[in-house]
Amino acid sequence: MKNYIQHDPWCIIEEGFRPKYNRISESLCSIGNGRFGQRANFEEFYSGDTLQGSYVAGVYYPDKTRVGWWKNGYPEYFAKVLNSTNWIGINVELDGEKLDLARCEIEQFQRVLNMKEGFLQRTLTAKTTGGKRFRLDSIRFCSIVDDKIGAIRYAITPLNFSGKIQFTPYLDADVENEDSNYEEKFWIPIEEKANNQSAFVTVETKKTAFQVCTGMSFDLFKNGEKQDLNSNTLQRDKYAECVVEVNAKDEDEVVLYKYAAIISSMNCEKDDLMQTCASSLKQAHEKGFDPLKEEQKKAWAAKWEESDIVIEGDVAAQQGIRFNIYHMNQTYTGEDERLNIGPKGFTGEKYGGSTYWDTEAYCLPFYLSTADQKVARNLLVYRYKHLQKAIENAEKLGFKDGAALYPMVTINGEECHNEWEITFEEIHRNGAIAFAIYNYIRYTGDKAYIGEYGLEVLLGIARFWAQRVHFSARKQQYVMHGVTGPNEYENNVNNNWYTNYIAIWCLKYALEAIQQVRSEDESRLNAIFDKIKFYEHTETNRWKDIIDKMFYPVDEELGIFLQQDGFMDKEQILVSDLPEEDRPLNQKWSWDRILRSCFIKQADVLQGFYFFEDHFDEASHRRNFEFYEPRTVHESSLSPCVHAILAAKLGMEEKAYEMYLRTSRLDLDDYNNDTEDGLHITSMAGTWMAVVQGFGGMRVKDGALYFNPMLPKGWTSFSFRIRFRGAILSVKVDKNGTTIDNHSDIQVPVYINEESIL
Amino acid sequence: MKNYIQHDPWCIIEEGFRPKYNRISESLCSIGNGRFGQRANFEEFYSGDTLQGSYVAGVYYPDKTRVGWWKNGYPEYFAKVLNSTNWIGINVELDGEKLDLARCEIEQFQRVLNMKEGFLQRTLTAKTTGGKRFRLDSIRFCSIVDDKIGAIRYAITPLNFSGKIQFTPYLDADVENEDSNYEEKFWIPIEEKANNQSAFVTVETKKTAFQVCTGMSFDLFKNGEKQDLNSNTLQRDKYAECVVEVNAKDEDEVVLYKYAAIISSMNCEKDDLMQTCASSLKQAHEKGFDPLKEEQKKAWAAKWEESDIVIEGDVAAQQGIRFNIYHMNQTYTGEDERLNIGPKGFTGEKYGGSTYWDTEAYCLPFYLSTADQKVARNLLVYRYKHLQKAIENAEKLGFKDGAALYPMVTINGEECHNEWEITFEEIHRNGAIAFAIYNYIRYTGDKAYIGEYGLEVLLGIARFWAQRVHFSARKQQYVMHGVTGPNEYENNVNNNWYTNYIAIWCLKYALEAIQQVRSEDESRLNAIFDKIKFYEHTETNRWKDIIDKMFYPVDEELGIFLQQDGFMDKEQILVSDLPEEDRPLNQKWSWDRILRSCFIKQADVLQGFYFFEDHFDEASHRRNFEFYEPRTVHESSLSPCVHAILAAKLGMEEKAYEMYLRTSRLDLDDYNNDTEDGLHITSMAGTWMAVVQGFGGMRVKDGALYFNPMLPKGWTSFSFRIRFRGAILSVKVDKNGTTIDNHSDIQVPVYINEESIL
Repeated sequence: MKNYIQHDPWCIIEEGFRPKYNRISESLCSIGNGRFGQRANFEEFYSGDTLQGSYVAGVYYPDKTRVGWWKNGYPEYFAKVLNSTNWIGINVELDGEKLDLARCEIEQFQRVLNMKEGFLQRTLTAKTTGGKRFRLDSIRFCSIVDDKIGAIRYAITPLNFSGKIQFTPYLDADVENEDSNYEEKFWIPIEEKANNQSAFVTVETKKTAFQVCTGMSFDLFKNGEKQDLNSNTLQRDKYAECVVEVNAKDEDEVVLYKYAAIISSMNCEKDDLMQTCASSLKQAHEKGFDPLKEEQKKAWAAKWEESDIVIEGDVAAQQGIRFNIYHMNQTYTGEDERLNIGPKGFTGEKYGGSTYWDTEAYCLPFYLSTADQKVARNLLVYRYKHLQKAIENAEKLGFKDGAALYPMVTINGEECHNEWEITFEEIHRNGAIAFAIYNYIRYTGDKAYIGEYGLEVLLGIARFWAQRVHFSARKQQYVMHGVTGPNEYENNVNNNWYTNYIAIWCLKYALEAIQQVRSEDESRLNAIFDKIKFYEHTETNRWKDIIDKMFYPVDEELGIFLQQDGFMDKEQILVSDLPEEDRPLNQKWSWDRILRSCFIKQADVLQGFYFFEDHFDEASHRRNFEFYEPRTVHESSLSPCVHAILAAKLGMEEKAYEMYLRTSRLDLDDYNNDTEDGLHITSMAGTWMAVVQGFGGMRVKDGALYFNPMLPKGWTSFSFRIRFRGAILSVKVDKNGTTIDNHSDIQVPVYINEESIL
Repeated sequence: MKNYIQHDPWCIIEEGFRPKYNRISESLCSIGNGRFGQRANFEEFYSGDTLQGSYVAGVYYPDKTRVGWWKNGYPEYFAKVLNSTNWIGINVELDGEKLDLARCEIEQFQRVLNMKEGFLQRTLTAKTTGGKRFRLDSIRFCSIVDDKIGAIRYAITPLNFSGKIQFTPYLDADVENEDSNYEEKFWIPIEEKANNQSAFVTVETKKTAFQVCTGMSFDLFKNGEKQDLNSNTLQRDKYAECVVEVNAKDEDEVVLYKYAAIISSMNCEKDDLMQTCASSLKQAHEKGFDPLKEEQKKAWAAKWEESDIVIEGDVAAQQGIRFNIYHMNQTYTGEDERLNIGPKGFTGEKYGGSTYWDTEAYCLPFYLSTADQKVARNLLVYRYKHLQKAIENAEKLGFKDGAALYPMVTINGEECHNEWEITFEEIHRNGAIAFAIYNYIRYTGDKAYIGEYGLEVLLGIARFWAQRVHFSARKQQYVMHGVTGPNEYENNVNNNWYTNYIAIWCLKYALEAIQQVRSEDESRLNAIFDKIKFYEHTETNRWKDIIDKMFYPVDEELGIFLQQDGFMDKEQILVSDLPEEDRPLNQKWSWDRILRSCFIKQADVLQGFYFFEDHFDEASHRRNFEFYEPRTVHESSLSPCVHAILAAKLGMEEKAYEMYLRTSRLDLDDYNNDTEDGLHITSMAGTWMAVVQGFGGMRVKDGALYFNPMLPKGWTSFSFRIRFRGAILSVKVDKNGTTIDNHSDIQVPVYINEESIL
């Protein structure tokens, strides 16, 4: 755990440069706009430790799977998020001396992510080895108004010398991924151009043949006066630069404005890439840096208007929640149904892929409440479009007749993860994808979704579960063997309660969905049945038989549901019995020891209670929570938020607050010692849930909103806005109670502590 | 499955060249002498497909572990068997045209491994692209008389041309492993020398700093007349060559005799390497090729005298068993207790390491019966010498107080395998290592071994099991969770019967061993207890409690022991129900499907019956065999031999013969489609067991030998020799019965079908 980041309600502030934390700061202060993103690398050359990262949404490389021992069924590739063209680069020479902060004496340094207005700022004064003192001020942002545009204001002020200040703004696509297998490069050159005031580089990914065209243009000012440009240009494969210089004297502020346009073949015909890029770039350049920054500020204000959570009386908690919301918003905008929410977003390359079950289980509620309905809908449609791939994925594992198994990790619908206990066995992900359909409709009331897209997905998933269970002759019940639940600290177990439960729920929901479409549009139903060759009688009868005869592991004595068949045979010790030096277990214990222990990474019985709250009474909630919470080590970033919500529901305020703290500042304080790789984007949505569903106690039932709020001790108040079925509500909880205002003309039923208030 | 190898009782014959099977033939016809070995690569340059392999016992490289997803506890390196200096190389130019069989038109070709006399022979006639016809005759062997020496007779006869025949005998250590991660080389140059008639290359392994010095010398003959040499020499890093030539005309036979001496720092001080190598080389050269070959023939005759099995009436079966015995003998001689039996011996680089539980479970009985007692003893001492490493290995997994977990795969005592379900969970290997001590003493009567070496190993192993079980409060019994049995088609299971059973047997045997040493030499016992800080009262009381309260999974209804807790909940189908196209499962089914199925790679309950035959009555044998055999797919090379032995014991002749066929020609007929990687050396010993313990029904009880023979239908007779407590017995089984002769002066009690005969 580190806590060098200053507490501030709206900004992430690194005061004083810490080279050894540079990668962490680069992750924390990443900027993006849902279409591309950029780690907080320095613009100028830096010879110190850094993870260079510039990412373009949807552009990936299928790198060869690397395993020690191949298992049949492993996917052939691992889809990598690609480090793409460096568009921020501006090399600097101060009177002939190349600027490299790693070789400077730094007098003052501040790196600030301004979340309110959506930009990254760096100011510093330093002295070169040659003794030149200077000030550097840079501001940059990825526009959320025009998501092709990035802009940089980069200022140098000599403080004790006069001489030539040379800038080399460049575009460099000759870049690598740190996680490549053999240090190979994934980009091939297509075209480079450089002229007096602009340059373009187009490159193409190997194998996948995505093209990305990046353009830059720039202006040079001295003390506010625009300078004539006389660029020396250089271009080579995958690279273009322009060198400009100006004479400056002591205290002259020399400013390079660099504009970039980034466009990929995801969004533009390859033949038109260059032209589209050039025209976007021209438009941005003509608008100019300050107007672009002003519109950025307004657009972020609108975002915050929709999704902010205000916490009074606890600035660390305030900063934490805004940090989470900010990164969620710049990772995924919901405008492109082909995109999804990568585990590291645009902040790192680790974990590859872009889509985990995190999207459905953790991210969907955030977008449902804080963005236009189409955003959440696009997250569902994304999976609909991958249905055929999910069917093929299931076929690779021996399933048939249209059974669909969605991948554990994917970028294009194909599986790209390669641990057998996860890839083949952590199949509960299928349940979360079905639940998301239910959850979306419950929240939005958009029942038409079932007929349009939902039913086909539900039928594919139901078919999978119906084949994945088998009948135990001994038990005379259906069982499910060889699974890994959300608790990844048990692998290859039999009858994971959560997986069994959600599987049966999927069968029931699919049956309901069939009836719903039948009652609304029987011809649509028949068309779907024909398309997927659905033998309703035979298939649904089997489903009903499975529903009737499913086995669920329970412990009668304790009155709890069991993680899995063998759980009570484990040695039962508690997290409180663990020596501090043994934690985190995943860094201190060998894997087998973790698996044998009763310690839980993420309590999946409780995940089931979170999803299916109304299926169980409060006493059962309490018994299961009190059994599992003391055994849970929360070494999944997705774990604490669910515990926070359940603890809040059960009135356990301290526990709820403890869990909230674990989730909200996970990256800011680098709890897991891995922020340098990038941020835990998907778990950030869980932090939002911990406030709104946990402390706010928000639930949706029968088209109405219910709140059962709880105000944590240290907070003066907390408030948030949500969208619900066209209405925009603000909710404020303070010591006097809960106030809810409807800022729209649309009436929606709202209850506070079970009393109707609107 | 392939069957291009001709059936012959004493030879492995490839008639006609099959380039696409070249790697297979290279494996099958490998030669070795326990100290070094060589695949059947061509001496001259060959541009076609080949796996070059020259291996020196005990010389390895710790290559970086390669996994997709790192788990805590994985070993940092994978010990690789190293491709070492090529000592066979002889490049040839026929009147200026470089010889490369891949570019020749081959008229006749024969590659023969002569197992009786221990040499590899290749004869061929071919025509070059330039139209030159020639004959090539080569013979080579690795001397088992002086295990530093290799010798080659390499003859070229022009058939339609006259001109210069140029030979370039060379030594080349600039070689690679195919299984290197990044195509890096593992050898660094130390010294090269080349002069008129000899050359030397010394190289050192990176990291491990083994040195290997290889020397060569040669003579050139034309039509039986020795030629004066006038070599052109060349040396560079890791390489040395001598170029010699002679004018030849049509039908002149030109012969290059090449002698090699190979010596590593395993057996010689580094400073003396070159000198020792040179003197060995000189000695061999002076002796000359024919005398060396003659003494090789005699030495192999002596080996066969000890270990041959003669099968009359079935040449395929005869060839199969001799092939297995031959390779066992040239892989491991038992003369160096630091060596062991690699899974591929000197025939390939796959699987790395050198020691698996195969050694104790499968190889030991072969060496016990066919070699001097010290050979088997050295196999045990090998593990004794690794005891401290096994304790460290256990510590890495969280065990303490001297608990020892021997590695799954090792070359120096450290674990070097990296699949969590194997490395951390396939812990039954510890049981096999203890059983080998018992088995060795049972066979040899060498009780002193317990006090000298055995007890410390047994105590370390017992301590491991005592920590690895835990008490189930629910069951009120001890259980063992998270293991993988010999049946690797189930992973991470609870209460694998075989593992539970052998664990408890280890505890009991350790208790017995303590008492034995106490009664024989109490001061030795106390010295051991002091050395390992053994608290007898506390520790043995815990062991006794575990022995008393261990849980064993059984199925009362079927009267069988269960693979593991959940086995009867699996869908129960039989191998005979499997479509042919689904097999082998490990190439056709995804891993999870295999794990969920009831199909068994290698039946570990039956392995337990094999080890502990006398603990169970015959009805129990039968019930368990009849339950497990039909569920076993034998996709482990170690599986069929145990089934053959049990089937023979149960009088199931057809099943026993079917199982024997599967094991004996596994590599010759390339059943598993992987002979190109090298031979399954360790399973070869199982083939020997299938004949001697299966059809011969040989057992040892209370110092006596028992035979219950069965003659398979197609066989006229079978006979074998065994050593037993100083006596040498020949056993012959034919249609008239069983004849046993004692060729020694030492009387040993022998029973045939329970009747005393000697």
